[in-house]
Amino acid sequence: MTERVREILSWYQSDTPGTRANIARLLNHGTLGGTGKLVILPVDQGFEHGPARSFAPNPAGYDPRYHFDLAINAGCNAYAAPLGFLEAGAAEYAGEIPLILKLNNSDSLSGGKDPCPAITGSVDDALRLGCAAIGFTIYPASAARNEMYGQIRALGEEAKRKGLAVVVWSYPRGSGISKEGETAIDVVAYAAQIAAQLGAHVIKVKPPTAHIEQDAARKVYEKQQVPVASLADRVRHVVQSAFNGRRIVIFSGGEAKETSAILDEIRGIRDGGGFGSIIGRNSFQRPREEAVKFLKTVMDIYAAKAK
Amino acid sequence: MTERVREILSWYQSDTPGTRANIARLLNHGTLGGTGKLVILPVDQGFEHGPARSFAPNPAGYDPRYHFDLAINAGCNAYAAPLGFLEAGAAEYAGEIPLILKLNNSDSLSGGKDPCPAITGSVDDALRLGCAAIGFTIYPASAARNEMYGQIRALGEEAKRKGLAVVVWSYPRGSGISKEGETAIDVVAYAAQIAAQLGAHVIKVKPPTAHIEQDAARKVYEKQQVPVASLADRVRHVVQSAFNGRRIVIFSGGEAKETSAILDEIRGIRDGGGFGSIIGRNSFQRPREEAVKFLKTVMDIYAAKAK
Amino acid sequence: MTERVREILSWYQSDTPGTRANIARLLNHGTLGGTGKLVILPVDQGFEHGPARSFAPNPAGYDPRYHFDLAINAGCNAYAAPLGFLEAGAAEYAGEIPLILKLNNSDSLSGGKDPCPAITGSVDDALRLGCAAIGFTIYPASAARNEMYGQIRALGEEAKRKGLAVVVWSYPRGSGISKEGETAIDVVAYAAQIAAQLGAHVIKVKPPTAHIEQDAARKVYEKQQVPVASLADRVRHVVQSAFNGRRIVIFSGGEAKETSAILDEIRGIRDGGGFGSIIGRNSFQRPREEAVKFLKTVMDIYAAKAK
Amino acid sequence: MTERVREILSWYQSDTPGTRANIARLLNHGTLGGTGKLVILPVDQGFEHGPARSFAPNPAGYDPRYHFDLAINAGCNAYAAPLGFLEAGAAEYAGEIPLILKLNNSDSLSGGKDPCPAITGSVDDALRLGCAAIGFTIYPASAARNEMYGQIRALGEEAKRKGLAVVVWSYPRGSGISKEGETAIDVVAYAAQIAAQLGAHVIKVKPPTAHIEQDAARKVYEKQQVPVASLADRVRHVVQSAFNGRRIVIFSGGEAKETSAILDEIRGIRDGGGFGSIIGRNSFQRPREEAVKFLKTVMDIYAAKAK
Amino acid sequence: MTERVREILSWYQSDTPGTRANIARLLNHGTLGGTGKLVILPVDQGFEHGPARSFAPNPAGYDPRYHFDLAINAGCNAYAAPLGFLEAGAAEYAGEIPLILKLNNSDSLSGGKDPCPAITGSVDDALRLGCAAIGFTIYPASAARNEMYGQIRALGEEAKRKGLAVVVWSYPRGSGISKEGETAIDVVAYAAQIAAQLGAHVIKVKPPTAHIEQDAARKVYEKQQVPVASLADRVRHVVQSAFNGRRIVIFSGGEAKETSAILDEIRGIRDGGGFGSIIGRNSFQRPREEAVKFLKTVMDIYAAKAK
Repeated sequence: MTERVREILSWYQSDTPGTRANIARLLNHGTLGGTGKLVILPVDQGFEHGPARSFAPNPAGYDPRYHFDLAINAGCNAYAAPLGFLEAGAAEYAGEIPLILKLNNSDSLSGGKDPCPAITGSVDDALRLGCAAIGFTIYPASAARNEMYGQIRALGEEAKRKGLAVVVWSYPRGSGISKEGETAIDVVAYAAQIAAQLGAHVIKVKPPTAHIEQDAARKVYEKQQVPVASLADRVRHVVQSAFNGRRIVIFSGGEAKETSAILDEIRGIRDGGGFGSIIGRNSFQRPREEAVKFLKTVMDIYAAKAK
Repeated sequence: MTERVREILSWYQSDTPGTRANIARLLNHGTLGGTGKLVILPVDQGFEHGPARSFAPNPAGYDPRYHFDLAINAGCNAYAAPLGFLEAGAAEYAGEIPLILKLNNSDSLSGGKDPCPAITGSVDDALRLGCAAIGFTIYPASAARNEMYGQIRALGEEAKRKGLAVVVWSYPRGSGISKEGETAIDVVAYAAQIAAQLGAHVIKVKPPTAHIEQDAARKVYEKQQVPVASLADRVRHVVQSAFNGRRIVIFSGGEAKETSAILDEIRGIRDGGGFGSIIGRNSFQRPREEAVKFLKTVMDIYAAKAK
Repeated sequence: MTERVREILSWYQSDTPGTRANIARLLNHGTLGGTGKLVILPVDQGFEHGPARSFAPNPAGYDPRYHFDLAINAGCNAYAAPLGFLEAGAAEYAGEIPLILKLNNSDSLSGGKDPCPAITGSVDDALRLGCAAIGFTIYPASAARNEMYGQIRALGEEAKRKGLAVVVWSYPRGSGISKEGETAIDVVAYAAQIAAQLGAHVIKVKPPTAHIEQDAARKVYEKQQVPVASLADRVRHVVQSAFNGRRIVIFSGGEAKETSAILDEIRGIRDGGGFGSIIGRNSFQRPREEAVKFLKTVMDIYAAKAK
Repeated sequence: MTERVREILSWYQSDTPGTRANIARLLNHGTLGGTGKLVILPVDQGFEHGPARSFAPNPAGYDPRYHFDLAINAGCNAYAAPLGFLEAGAAEYAGEIPLILKLNNSDSLSGGKDPCPAITGSVDDALRLGCAAIGFTIYPASAARNEMYGQIRALGEEAKRKGLAVVVWSYPRGSGISKEGETAIDVVAYAAQIAAQLGAHVIKVKPPTAHIEQDAARKVYEKQQVPVASLADRVRHVVQSAFNGRRIVIFSGGEAKETSAILDEIRGIRDGGGFGSIIGRNSFQRPREEAVKFLKTVMDIYAAKAK
Repeated sequence: MTERVREILSWYQSDTPGTRANIARLLNHGTLGGTGKLVILPVDQGFEHGPARSFAPNPAGYDPRYHFDLAINAGCNAYAAPLGFLEAGAAEYAGEIPLILKLNNSDSLSGGKDPCPAITGSVDDALRLGCAAIGFTIYPASAARNEMYGQIRALGEEAKRKGLAVVVWSYPRGSGISKEGETAIDVVAYAAQIAAQLGAHVIKVKPPTAHIEQDAARKVYEKQQVPVASLADRVRHVVQSAFNGRRIVIFSGGEAKETSAILDEIRGIRDGGGFGSIIGRNSFQRPREEAVKFLKTVMDIYAAKAK
């Protein structure tokens, strides 16, 4: 147990030893084990975007075992997926990598501007499948946000009592904000704060832009001269917004894009004190060997000293 | 146990000894302990307004431990916050100050004129975290008010059975009234009455203005010549409206403003028989030392005889 | 919060903040508050021995309010009693002293050499009455011990989940040992260990004698030269037997006896590192003024440095 | 994941992925991780034999943290203990070693020839404390055996549903057999079979002697010429009796004895195909450095090829 | 679905379709499928008599998979075993043969003349493992019979609600009768009646002798001239005693004996209208090929017309 992991665990003293042990499992597994940094493979796109959009670019990914194997071989800290994908491999890969069961998911077959995912798994499913954590998506700025907040409140309470960790995907989206606002620095920082206040142990947000969405916020950012020019600045502010860095905040990879652009982004996250990345499409849509190499490069960046 | 505290406790004879003991804990802790007056530090603005708007003016406040420490060192009667903020310090500060778990919260990322907060904590969370009370916000005048009233009914019933006190933030807001009406004397008095009728032990309202919102009310105020000219008059009327002073009514500090203006307001509350203040932004957005000094001044005012 | 109390709380890191706060309440109340020492008033003798045997020597004690008042005025850390006695005063004295609800009790109207108390209260009763802890008696060496161990297992799990502390009276008694063995050093140390292994936060045992009851134990005490000559030696060994001093161990006053003998015993307990006393008959069977004075003398001894 | 661990996991295909992952955790942790062999540190003697008999030979062991530390530093696969001992360290050592919560325990303060332990922990306690498995002792040959079999049936079912592994200590003892019969080869083999039929994933028995206790069994052993001359022979037969080696069978170290005798025994267990040892008194009653060295020697023997 | 199976199912019209479907599964599987006859392989001897006595004669039987394989290859209608044996193969052989989970079992390590098995499995275990039925042993004539009757009442109720069939092993044994009486015709007929009255769908008894145990019964058998001379006579009477043949009654093979003797017995059972056999030791203690051949011969007898 490294000093850094011990330090991180000290932030969760209200939690049971079981929950703390599962946070430790996330932090201690894989290539980055012990560094306090995490790279997690999430594969919920089959549910969220449909199979062809998700897996046709690299058809090996239609097979649920592919993602277990990728996460294990690339040295990820954990693998996160919905019920079906985990059920389709949890026995075969039992004990090989910490698992996160995504307890809610949205499909793209019906829409509306105010998303609210369906509950698609339970805490007892997570125990049965041997998971270290539950995952849950909230959409702050959706008119349906209260329903999601209430759901994670109940699921989080149960998960904590049963010794699991709670990972919250906090993605502002909906009629309360503009499209550009979804990644605005004020909104992403706010999203991190909301997840932390809801009791998340690990918070996943999108890399923020320098855009400021809300007028009331803009006044404060300007008056207090909160630095938001570089990605590192913005990540630093988001991490600060998650209990002054006393909650684990990781960043999504977002849409597939140029490798060099992603790696620059990773460097920015690292330099701003981000705890790591959760990279789906940019991993599993590449050919396997390339994906492994790519993920290892990402891990190398996190393992290196921040500038 | 002072005579005054004994007198206050005598108003709650239908409650269990556990609830009464927790009301006593709120009344007996801190600098004002035993006086029957309370100054409570609430920090839910991170959730309600976002992190930068809340904490950038005094960045130490990003750290959840800061507020425990501030409340303890300033001699407050209690500290109130949402789940995440309490989880992030309840173990470290166990037993040092009575805690109030805010069980519902609203964020500012989506709006609508008829607010309804999300449920973000449970009575069992409050027990687990060692709280003396649950806190709950209702928005009378919101079209969604019945949902909130029904929620606090159920949560309050459970809290009382389990020996906790119930603190209700009663903030009229929504399509039923004008913006100015939110602090109108008739509306604030009405909000205090509603909270009391819903079974609150402690009621938090905003300092009322002399504006009268409802025509039906205006006729009575004029006919019966209810004095509403001074803040003390209005506070006296609000306290009267909360079961003739047999429920604890405290007043929010509202938006950050000039210190002297706040202190004048505090004097008015005191002179009108208000039981105290719950001061968030005006406390934690100041530098720590200034905040402690400010809160002590507030407490001095409450400790002094009313004019 | 003193350093010593902080140190003691650090032994209970697997517990919820609520439980830790209640342990802190026990440690921080009364004359000895903050010293890490405790003097608790227990009054279950009315149930255990009958009213006349308990209260005729000082008839004021027939009134349940008497004991609340005595515990408060003498500056005790807590008052422990069965359901009826607490119900008969918990409202009147709400918030004035930490309460411990004894959840099981034996009467003397029927016997047998293998005692097993009746369950006479619940964890929810303790919450309703505003208690800081539940109390439970086990009789190791009784043929019915497994029933008691199973009961405290379940009650302790529930109490901890709901934020209460667990106090176990561990009194070896029954067909497994001799009468003399009930206070034998090996048996008392064993009783402390059993209570600790069952998950007690606070353990109450009787002051041990130098007698060694079990042959298998005697061999070890002799071979390892465990010092048991003085009471301080024996108390030190009992405290060591409760997780090397990392559980709070307090000692009963036992049968009424000469004041000077009791005070000598208290000094021995203190010098051996005992955490305090739980003194019933020797307190409430004296006239009130004498009892208060006596308890204050006991507290003075605990407050003084150990030799 | 080694081939051998994969093979072992293949025996548990009726179990949930959660249970299989926890079996994998036991097999993959520590010095022997991946070999399919286990050395587990069990410390329930404080409860079973009393504190002085257990810890006076090496007083550091009075402290619950000592055993976590010993198990971790010696490279054991897991640490097993009753509720109190785990609660007193599970937070501090969260995530550092797989834990096994012993759910039943017997003390030595009362006897009778037909032992039946008390239930002292729950499956939910195991989850809360972050355990990989529950542990449970049965005493075949006790007149109270049915009570124990019924208890582990229920606890095992719950543990499996919640993703935990089940470790059964199967120690024949009681009025059904002689003292010598407790370690008789027929009885130990039978005890292993019973535990396996009750659904145990891991079975702990005592090293068997060549004595045959039951007449009906003797006839078969003689007729079928089952080899029982050497310890390796007997271990082979016990392992065969646990579903032809398709259940993990480990052997207790028993009473403290000469190191060379123990190591010879370990070699016999290894040569007979035993899966490992669970060594309590022979570990923690030695000085720490010696204990670590001793355990490492044991592990070296298991890591070496069987003769 | 043959007419005969339809006829048999018509006897169970109070049962749910699920239970009826499972009775049909038992009747329609294997070589005798559709004939209304059954040959079931039961293997609980590992638990009941110990591993060596059960499996040393044919060591392949130590492996739980052996019995699944034997039952399937011999064309049995079902395979019955305790929890551990089914867990160790139910996944590998899922869907290949109807399973019966024996919910109670006795070991031979302690005795007493009034046997009462331990509960070793649950109805939910049976569902989880994909069983068609639960199995349960009662010992009429044991002083503990009421405990067993009460257990099967509750388990049977649950099994029926959940759509399983109930198979009762009804073996008179205990202080109420002589050793010879265990297979007396009056006693076996009585045992069949008790099982039927307890709600069994399938009843297993031992082949009865011509001995009459009870005086009160003898008078009636003599007066009414109930034929009991031949095995066929006696079987006819036992089947009649099980609701005039409207419950499925099958007969155990008993101790290993000469093949020709067994086959004669089978013919007697067939000629008396018995529904089949449940043959354990006489099957699995033979070498595999011989066992398969033997079982096929048994099935041929049942398939042939009765004389």
